[in-house]
This record gives sequence, structure tokens and C-alpha cells, in this order.
Amino acid sequence: MKNYIKHDPWKIIEDKFNPDYNKISESICSLGNGKFGQRANFEESFSGKTLQGNYVSGVYYPDKTRVGWWKNGYPEYFAKMLNAPDWTGIKINIEGEELDLAKCKVENFSRVLDMKRGVLERKFTAETQSGKRLEVFSTRFLSIVRDENAAIKYTILPKNFSSKAEILSEVDADIKNEDSNYDEKFWTEIEKVSDENNTFVTAETKKTFFQVCTAIKTTLTNFSKAENILKEKYAAKKYTVQLTENQPFTVYKYAAVTSTMYYDKTEISKKTLEVLEKAFNDGFETLLKEQENAWEEKWRESDIIIDGDVAAQQGIHFNIFQLNQTYTGRDERLNIGPKGFTGEKYGGTTYWDTEAYCLPFYLATADKKVAHSLLVYRWKHLKKAIENAEKLGFTGGAALYPMVTANGEECHNEWEITFEEIHRNAAIANAVRIYIDYTGEKKYLADYGLEVLIGISRFWAQRVNWSADKEKYVMLGVTGPNEYENNVNNNWYTSYSAVQNLKYTIQAINFVKENYPQDFERIKKVCSFNESETEKWQDIIEKMYLGYDEKRKVFIQNDGFLDKELIPVSELDPKVRPINQHWSWDRILRSCYIKQADVLQGIYFFENNFDVETIKRNFEFYEQFTVHESSLSSCIHNILAAKVGLYDKAYQYYLNASRLDLDDYNNDTCDGCHITSMGGTWMTIVQGFGGMRIKDGMLSFKAVLPEKWNSYSFQIRHKDNVLKINVSKSGTQIERLEGSECQVIVDGKVIKV
Amino acid sequence: MKNYIKHDPWKIIEDKFNPDYNKISESICSLGNGKFGQRANFEESFSGKTLQGNYVSGVYYPDKTRVGWWKNGYPEYFAKMLNAPDWTGIKINIEGEELDLAKCKVENFSRVLDMKRGVLERKFTAETQSGKRLEVFSTRFLSIVRDENAAIKYTILPKNFSSKAEILSEVDADIKNEDSNYDEKFWTEIEKVSDENNTFVTAETKKTFFQVCTAIKTTLTNFSKAENILKEKYAAKKYTVQLTENQPFTVYKYAAVTSTMYYDKTEISKKTLEVLEKAFNDGFETLLKEQENAWEEKWRESDIIIDGDVAAQQGIHFNIFQLNQTYTGRDERLNIGPKGFTGEKYGGTTYWDTEAYCLPFYLATADKKVAHSLLVYRWKHLKKAIENAEKLGFTGGAALYPMVTANGEECHNEWEITFEEIHRNAAIANAVRIYIDYTGEKKYLADYGLEVLIGISRFWAQRVNWSADKEKYVMLGVTGPNEYENNVNNNWYTSYSAVQNLKYTIQAINFVKENYPQDFERIKKVCSFNESETEKWQDIIEKMYLGYDEKRKVFIQNDGFLDKELIPVSELDPKVRPINQHWSWDRILRSCYIKQADVLQGIYFFENNFDVETIKRNFEFYEQFTVHESSLSSCIHNILAAKVGLYDKAYQYYLNASRLDLDDYNNDTCDGCHITSMGGTWMTIVQGFGGMRIKDGMLSFKAVLPEKWNSYSFQIRHKDNVLKINVSKSGTQIERLEGSECQVIVDGKVIKV
Repeated sequence: MKNYIKHDPWKIIEDKFNPDYNKISESICSLGNGKFGQRANFEESFSGKTLQGNYVSGVYYPDKTRVGWWKNGYPEYFAKMLNAPDWTGIKINIEGEELDLAKCKVENFSRVLDMKRGVLERKFTAETQSGKRLEVFSTRFLSIVRDENAAIKYTILPKNFSSKAEILSEVDADIKNEDSNYDEKFWTEIEKVSDENNTFVTAETKKTFFQVCTAIKTTLTNFSKAENILKEKYAAKKYTVQLTENQPFTVYKYAAVTSTMYYDKTEISKKTLEVLEKAFNDGFETLLKEQENAWEEKWRESDIIIDGDVAAQQGIHFNIFQLNQTYTGRDERLNIGPKGFTGEKYGGTTYWDTEAYCLPFYLATADKKVAHSLLVYRWKHLKKAIENAEKLGFTGGAALYPMVTANGEECHNEWEITFEEIHRNAAIANAVRIYIDYTGEKKYLADYGLEVLIGISRFWAQRVNWSADKEKYVMLGVTGPNEYENNVNNNWYTSYSAVQNLKYTIQAINFVKENYPQDFERIKKVCSFNESETEKWQDIIEKMYLGYDEKRKVFIQNDGFLDKELIPVSELDPKVRPINQHWSWDRILRSCYIKQADVLQGIYFFENNFDVETIKRNFEFYEQFTVHESSLSSCIHNILAAKVGLYDKAYQYYLNASRLDLDDYNNDTCDGCHITSMGGTWMTIVQGFGGMRIKDGMLSFKAVLPEKWNSYSFQIRHKDNVLKINVSKSGTQIERLEGSECQVIVDGKVIKV
Repeated sequence: MKNYIKHDPWKIIEDKFNPDYNKISESICSLGNGKFGQRANFEESFSGKTLQGNYVSGVYYPDKTRVGWWKNGYPEYFAKMLNAPDWTGIKINIEGEELDLAKCKVENFSRVLDMKRGVLERKFTAETQSGKRLEVFSTRFLSIVRDENAAIKYTILPKNFSSKAEILSEVDADIKNEDSNYDEKFWTEIEKVSDENNTFVTAETKKTFFQVCTAIKTTLTNFSKAENILKEKYAAKKYTVQLTENQPFTVYKYAAVTSTMYYDKTEISKKTLEVLEKAFNDGFETLLKEQENAWEEKWRESDIIIDGDVAAQQGIHFNIFQLNQTYTGRDERLNIGPKGFTGEKYGGTTYWDTEAYCLPFYLATADKKVAHSLLVYRWKHLKKAIENAEKLGFTGGAALYPMVTANGEECHNEWEITFEEIHRNAAIANAVRIYIDYTGEKKYLADYGLEVLIGISRFWAQRVNWSADKEKYVMLGVTGPNEYENNVNNNWYTSYSAVQNLKYTIQAINFVKENYPQDFERIKKVCSFNESETEKWQDIIEKMYLGYDEKRKVFIQNDGFLDKELIPVSELDPKVRPINQHWSWDRILRSCYIKQADVLQGIYFFENNFDVETIKRNFEFYEQFTVHESSLSSCIHNILAAKVGLYDKAYQYYLNASRLDLDDYNNDTCDGCHITSMGGTWMTIVQGFGGMRIKDGMLSFKAVLPEKWNSYSFQIRHKDNVLKINVSKSGTQIERLEGSECQVIVDGKVIKV
């Protein structure tokens, strides 16, 4: 845990030069616009710790799988988020001395991410080894209005010298991924130009043949000479300039970053130059104004205001900011990578995190088209999910969605996860229900949802088997969300979710059949679906084995859990925490310690099915063994703690969730931020403290106000309404911002808004 | 399965040129002498399929571990058996044409491994592309008398030409391992010489810094010119010779292969040249005569004769031959690699195979020093086994022997095996009991055995935990010998074996305390052993959970086994066999199919504890689900089938075991032979058909004669006696070859021999 980021409601402030924390700050201050993103790397040279990172959404590389021992069914490759050509470099060389903060005396450093405006600002005073002092101010943004443009304003103020200098404005495609399995570079060069008019590189990914064109345009206060530089995978302009003591010298750099996701290879460079030219002609200040206005609008839709707790306010702003700059819903082929645009770790782009933790945020704070895109993404991958299941031996249109994917194909290669962490299917099926709960758009079932539900239900029906011994259906060889148990039998969460999926699918079939009979006929044909399939599903619903401990009256996480030594986490020596860094894997597996909500995840998803006493008993039993060594754990515990009235615990879990990256709780923010868990943080306030649920098609609130706060407010879209909820010491006020009169439940009572 | 090896009692005969099967024949016809070994590669160039392989015992390379996802506790490296410098090359170039069977018309080819004499012979007639016909005869052996020497006699008979030719006699250290994790070469060059007197290369392994010196000396019928050739990691003599039509031309090549296992680096080349000189001076025929005499002696001690079944006779001869040339017991630092000297696959050199399947062969057929060396090997690794357990979180001198090792450190890196296939400890403890059963040498406990037993018992005591739910000790997170179940709870074999180990350790403690009190005090000190430790062991012995199915009256392989769909293997579509090549890993895990004897392995080890009915019930229940996808499965099934009177089954299992490599049952002999399972094959005759057991310190026999056989005989050393057992239609005859009068049990009756 660290504590160097200053507290401020709207700004992320690093106000000292911390070279040791540079990779952390680079992650936290990353910028993105849904289409591409950029870590907060310095523009000038930096020989200290840094992780250069620019990422273009949808552009991936299938890196050849690396395993110790091959298992049948493993995928051949792992799709990696690509580190893409770098457009940011502005290298300053003053009389043979390269400006490099690792080699200077640095004062008055600050790096500030202004979340309100979507702008990154940096300043510092540097004294070079030869004694030259200069101030630098840089302002950078990735336009969320023109999502293929970015711009930098970079100002140099010499303090004690005048001299000639060289300024290099670069495009560098000779970059690599830190996590390359075989230390390979993933890009080849297609075209590069540096001439009087244009500077760009078009690079192509090996194997997948995506092209990314990165073009720049630079203006400077003045220059005496401009040279065109071309090297392998590299194009730049080198300017010879005169720096004058106490006179600011400014470089404007405009960039366009495009990909063959949107342009044909034959015209990508031409189009990119047009996109660049337009931005260039409009100018930095116009682009910046647009950016500020657009972010104002984003915040108007999605802001959460906490009064009385700046750290909490900063935390939730940071989470909302990152979610908004990572995913915009404009392209159904894109998704929310676990690190978004802030790092390359974990590869792939899509995990169950999207459905389980991110979906409610987008449903509640943006037009339903945004969440719709996330769901259609999975519908488009249904064929691949069926192929994935076939590779594992399933038949007849059973679908197993991948654990990790970029294009619908499975990438992951740990058997206990790849083949066994099948509860991801449940989250994807459940997302259909959540989408309809929020939007009321039941037609979605006929358009897309039912096909996905049928594929998943078929999978569950084959994945269980009849146990003659138990006289029940059992689900063998499963890994639940608690990855500290592998290959267990009858994971309650997975089995219970499967039953709920099967029930919902049968309801959905009946609904579509009745209301959209033509669609139903089409779906039957497309899926080769026979209505008699539901007979077995019904049988499974009735006879699924779900472990229950009569003594403690709790659900049993999985077979064998009660054979363990049940020693609460509180009795563990703090020195062995986190256990995943201190204990051998087998010791973790044999222990009772739970990585993240598992039984509780199920109770969270299907809360309406359980009374408060049941929730409380299970919460109290499992929470004591939970080590929360996943960023996805705290939010669920916050929500259930609030539900059962354990408000102090709820607040503690909120803190863990909301400042995870800002305070580098897990010592891994250097690799990038935990983007998908940020959706969970949003849920802690809305569903945790706000007690927001959707019951029988109505919004319901049962809010509590954390002691330290004066008030908080958030907004919810539901069907055609947008409501603003304000919780203060005087209670819960609800205001309708859009839509028509509606009924909501507040503290159990139906009221009109 | 293949069927190209001709049946012969003493010879392995390949009588046609089968370039597609070359790698298989290279494996089968490998030669070794305990210290080094050589695949049956051709001496001349061969551009067809081949796996060049020479291996020097004890010389390994710690190849950096390759994994997909790191787990805490994984070892940093995997010790690889090294492909060592090649001493065999005799390259023939006739007027610019290289002799290469892949490019010639080949007739009258034969490759014959004469097991009686320990000699490999090859002959062929080749017609080159230019039409030159020549016959070649080669004879090769690795001396088991002088275990650093090998020799080749290579004769060329030109059939239709006379011409100049170049003959290159080589040492080539520029070799690599096929299974290198990072495609790296493991050897560096230290010294190379090719001059009038000497031709050798000293090469050193990276990281481990073993040196191997490979020296050769060549004589030829005549030559007109001799050149000394040196290249990187390569030394050779090139002779210009005159070949004359119908006149045989012979090359004798003598080799010495030594390592710094036995010589200091400062003198290794000098010593090697001395070893070479001595062999050279004594000459090929003398060395060959010695070899034949020594093998005659080996066969006198260990032969099994089967009358009436040539295929069976050849099979068992092959197994005994390989066991004898792989391990001689002369060096306590060596062990029996899974592929011996026949291939590099699986790496490491020591698996539980040694104790579980190989030990009885060496105990019964060689001086007890041989088996003693195998046991002391593990005693020497006790400290490393304790360190290995410490890495996983065990304390207080608990020892977990490695799954795979070369020097005592764990190499394996699949968590479900490395950390969980802990039953290897049981086999190592059990080996102490077996050693004493055969030799009667109880003093071994005081000298070495007890320390190992205490380390292992301490491990079991920590590896179990008390289940409040079951009110029993349970053993969670285990993989049994059946690797088609991973991370299961309460694997009956492991838990039962642990109990037996604990019991035996307590007996051993009492024995040593009483009979060797001084040793006992020393051991207490060395192990920091406190006698009160046995109280918990006793408690575990009494309260260990051992699954038992009341309905079927069988032991339960592991928790959850009876939840599976129990469909016998006989109902599987043959097209999906072997399932490990056709099914995804998760499907295998969820299935009821058993890779190799698991419950039955336990019954085999501790057979005296079970009545025949119990054995039969368990055999019949588990055998029906067993797919025998390990070479170690058939032997146990043979022995138990014979025990319970299922003689046809026993015979079938015998066939599977004995000709596994000769007939390439599993389509993998190209990678090397299954050396360690050959000990199991020996057991099929002695313990299976011969019904040999040791009961209360007495040998016991209950022999059956397979229908197809007229008779069979084998020899057994027991204590100071060597007995010859002959089983024919007229019954079992026992003859004492060495030692004094003794009592044995035959068909339940005690008789004097």
C-alpha cells in the first residue's frame, strides 16, 4: 500500500518526482477514449523505470501458448493486448545533452490527471548535468469526441541559458510487449513516411494482420532546420531550434491513431492523414474545449458525489473516469480488458468480469445502446463458444464461453481454469436478465438473448451427470470464483447458477414463443432447438445436488469444504498475507481460505431468492475465511454486508475497493489498473450503501449513509427514466431527471417520482 | 502397435530397412553399461529420421522451467538427461558421394541386437546414386566390463567398384536435446585435440559444469593420408583410403567416454586417454570376448527361461537385458531413468518407478549391494527432501521426496503432480521394508533406513488434517497413481500407504532402539527426533479416514468417485482409445476411467493385509474402469489377476507388459524404451505366474503355468540363498544354487530346499 497520491475530489495529483513509483503513476494517469489509450509515459526520454504503453482497442496478437505440460483441449495461442506504436515522443537534446529526468536534478515536479476535463498535465523544473535549468509544462489528452485523435502541448522555459537545441517528434513502432511469451516483437512495418507534409508509420501485427497507422503533425514556436528521420519501424521530424533564456518555447503535437478495424488497408494511411489534418486545422484549443465539454456531459450522466470524504470522492471519481474512458459501447466488437488501456497484463480483452461487475454501471449511467453492445458482443461469439465446447467434447450446440478471449476463441491455458471455471457461462446468461431488468426491453430475448441462453443451458445439461450414489445430478470437476479451490465437485455457486440459468431459459422460451412466435421459429431453426430438450433441463432443476450443511444452515461451497481445518483469517499471522505470495499452491488449495466471493457471489446474483437470515448466516460463515486476494471480492462483500446491516464492514470493503489502484493496495498498479473491478466499486455505492435493487420491474432503494459522509448522490437509468438519488442525514431523496412519472420503492414503501 | 521385429529367443532382429521405424529400432537396440549408453544410431551419415542419442549417467542439465502460469513452490529448473557428445560417427565419402542410406538403394539390411552377448550388429548392401554397390558390416558394443569403453568394427566390401574414399572418424559435441525448453544447446567446449596420437573433445555442461571427455582411436586396413580435423565442439580424423572391389576394408574405432563424476577436471583428458589406450592395446577381439563372458555371467544370475513361447521369451529377455545394462549399482549417485539410455524424454533420472517397480528385480537377481545403492541414493537425498517439504510449508524435518529428480531437488512442474502426487513418499518408505524382506538385513534400519522413515512419517503427520465433520484424519488435495484424477480428497491408496508407513516406522524405531541403541541415539540427534512424535502417528494410524463403499464392499479410490458415471471401459468406442489422445483433459478428469492401478497398487503393496475375496472384489470393480494408459499398469493387474485366479487376464496383461516396446504398443518407442516398467514385467513372471511372495521372512510360491507355455524358470536371491524355480506341467521344482538349506513355502506348504 502506498499513499503518495494527494487527495482531491477531481484530480489525481502526484506532486513530487517519484522515480520509483513512476510505473504506478503511469498506470493511474493513463488516458483513453474507448478506441485507444495511452499510459502516462513522459514525452521526453526517460531512462528510469517505465512501462511504455499505447493500446488500440480490438487489435490483438495470438501469442503462441507457452505451457509446461500440454493438456488436450488447450488453445494454441493466447490473444495479447498489443502494445501499439508510440505517438507521444518529444525528445529534447540541448547541445548534446538529452533531457532525461533520470539524469537531472528535478524540482517542482507534478503530474496531474484532471478527471473532470479528461486532461493530463505535467510540469517540472530540471537541472541537467551541465547545469542548465529549464521548466517544462505538458498538457495531453486523448479526445473522446474525435476518438482517433490525441494532442500534446509541450512548453519549455529555459531558466539560466540560451542555446540551440534539437527537438525530435516521433512515431515509434519498434515496440514490444513485456509479456511476450517468446520474447518476440509483434509488429512488422508496412509503410513509413517522414517528409515535408507527413510523418507516419503504418505497422501490421504478425499473424492477425491488423494494421495501425500512427500519424503526427508538429508545430513549434520557431525552428531553423527541419530534418526527416526514418529508421526501422520509426518516423520522426528533427527540428533545430533556438531556446532563449526566460522565453517559453512551445511544441504542439497532434496525433491520429487508426486501425484496420475501421479502414481498409488500401486507404488507411490516406484516411489517417485526413483525420490528423482535420484536428490539426481545428487546433489544440478547439480540441481541448471539445474534450472538456464532452467530459462535462459524461459526468452529468454518471457522476457520484460524496460530501464529507475527499478520499472517497476521489476514489469513486477515479473509478467512473476509468470506466468511461475504457468503454463507450460504440463498437460491438470491443470489450473491457481487465487492465483497460492502462497495461498489458492478463492479455485478452474479455473475462466474466464484464458481465458480472461492469454491466450494471453502463446500464445505469449510459444509453442502453452501450450495454446492448456488450451483450451483442457475446451473441456474436456464440458460434465460437459452441466450437469451444465441441473441442472439449460437448455436442448439439452446447456453448462454453471462453475464460479469456479477444475474438471469441478461448485463450487461457490452466486446465483448472480454462476447462473448469465454467461459471463464466452463468454470468453471461445472467447478463441477459440484468439487461432486461434495467431496460425493460424483453424483445432482446427474441433478437439475441434466447440463442445465447439455449447454448448455455445445453452446456449445463451435458456438464452435469447423474450420481447413482447421491440420486441427484452432480457437477464434477469445477473451479468456482474462489480459485483457491481447483477441480472440486459440486461447487454450490456454479450448480445453483446453472439451475437459475435453466429456469430463466425455460421462461425465456415461453415468453418468446408466446410474444414473438416468428422469432421463435427462426431461433428453433438457427439453433436446431427441439422443445423437448427442456424436459431434461426441468429434471435437472428439480434434482440438482446443492450442498447444504444442516448443522450450520449454510450452503456448502463445494464437496469436502467442511473437511478442512476451519481457522478464521483473523487468526492467520499477518506475515503470511497475502497467502498467494507466501504459501505454496498446494497449501493454499488445502486451506479453507477463499480468494473471493464464491457462495456469496451466488447469493449476490440471486439475492431475491434468499431471506436476510440465510444471507447473513452464509455471509458470516464464509466471510471469516475469505482473504480477498482478487480485486473482485470487496464489492460483493460490501453489498451483502450492507444488506445484512453490517455497515462498518460495508464501509471497510468500500474503502478497499475504491482506492485499490490509487493507493496500490496489492502492489501491482505498476502493471496497470484493475479496470473491471471498478464497475464493482460503483456497485458498492449504488447497491451497497444505496441499497438499489430491481424488484418486480421496479427500482428499490434501502440506503444507508456511512458515518463519515454528510451525503452522497448518484444517478440511475431505469427503463426510460433517469433518477437522481440523494442520500443525506435527513434521508433518501429521489428526483426524476428524465422520463415520465414512475413508482419506486424506498425503504420498502412504494412512492411516486 | 507394430510387428516388424522378428521373434527370436535371444536376438532383437530387424531384417528389413524400415526408414520410417528407424527411431523405434534405435531405441530398442540401444546399448548401455550403467555408466553410459548409446542409441542404435547408424555410424555413417543418415539424413532420414533419427534421434541421435548418447547419455552419460549422472550428467544432467538444469533446464530453466517452462510454465504457462507460475505457481508458488514450482522448482526453477527441470533436470534433463543430456544428450552427450557422439563418439560413433564413421562417415564414408566415396568420390564425393556420401554414404547415406536415405539416399541409397538398400538391400539385405539387418540390425540385430544380440542380447546374449551384449552386441549390436548391422549389415546392409547399398547402391549409391552413381551406382556403386557396397556391403557394410558393423559390430558395436559398450563394454560392461570396462564401463568407460566402447568399440566398433566397421567393414566395407565394395561390390562393383574400386576407388579412393574418405573416411571420417568423429567425436561430435555439437549436439542438442530435442526436449530443450528454450532451444538452447547445453554444452560448451573445453578442449579439443586431433593430432597424430589423440582425437578427443572435452565438453562441459552449462550451469552444472560437468565435463565429459570423449576420445577415440581409429585403425584402418590401410590409408594413404590422415588429416586432423577440428571444428567447433568437434574433432575427427579424416583418412584417404583405397577401396578395392571385393576386398573387405575394415575400420576399428575405440572410444572412451568419461566424466567428472569420476575424474578431476585437471586430469580428465589424461585419464581418458589412458582408458582409451588400454582398450586399444588389448584390441577389439579381447574386449569382445570379455563382453561375452560378462554377459554370460549376468544371464546366469538373472535369466528367465520360457519354453514354448518365443515371443514371450524374447520379451522377457529384452526386459532383463535393458534393466541390466541400465543400472549396475556401482555408484550410489546414479538411478534408473524412465528411458534409461534409450532416449531423453521425461528428463530427470529418478521417479517413484525405481522403488515401486524396479527394486525387486535387482534384489532378486543381483548382489544385495546393487539394491543397497538404490536405497542409499534416497538416503543421501534426505536433506534435499526435507528442503523440498520446507518449500511447500512443512516443518520439523518432514521429508517430501521429489516426483522427478537428478540430484535430490524437485524438477517437476505440474502442481497437481509436483505438490500432490505425494504417494511417491510411500513407495520410498516401502522400499526399506522390501529391501529387508529380501535381504534379511535389518541392520539397514539403523544404518540408513530409519532416518528416511522418520522424515516420511513426519510428512504424513503434517499432510493430514483433522476433519471435525468426519471426526477422522483426512488427506486433502492429493493425486494418486491414477493421474486421471487430480487434487482429490482421501485417495485411498495414498492414505492407506501413509498409515502403513507410520506403522512400519514405529516398528522400526522400536527395533533400532532395542537392537542398536547407540545408533538410535545418533539418529535421534541427527533427526532431532523426539519419541513423543509417535503419539500423533499412532492417533493417525487409528483414526485415518479410508473410504469404503458398504454396498459394493470395495475401498473408494477417492471422495466423489462414486458420483461418476460408472461405464466400463468395454462399453467405450474403441475409436476414443487411448482416451488421453482423444478426450479433453477435463473430460478425462470427470470420467471414471483410471490411468493405472491405484486402489489396486495399494492392495499389491500390502497384499498380506487383505483376504483373497477382498482383493477379488476390488480387482473386479476397478479393473473394469482402468484404461492402462501408463506402462506401469499391466504388471500390477497381472499379479493381482493371477492372485485371484483370473489366469487368462493375467496372461493378457503379461503380454501387454513384456512386448510394450518391441511391438511399440503405445506408438512412442521412437522416444525411447519404457525402462522402469521393465522391472514390472519381471514381476509379472516371478510374482504373477510364479506367485512369489515373502511371508514372515520366508519365500513363498504359488505358481501357475500359462497354457501356451511348456515351462518357465527364474532365479531368486533371498537372504544368502539363490534358488532356481522351475515351473512345468508337472509342478514347481525348486533348486538351491547358492547358500545353505532353507525353508520355502510352495503352494501353501513349507518345504526344505
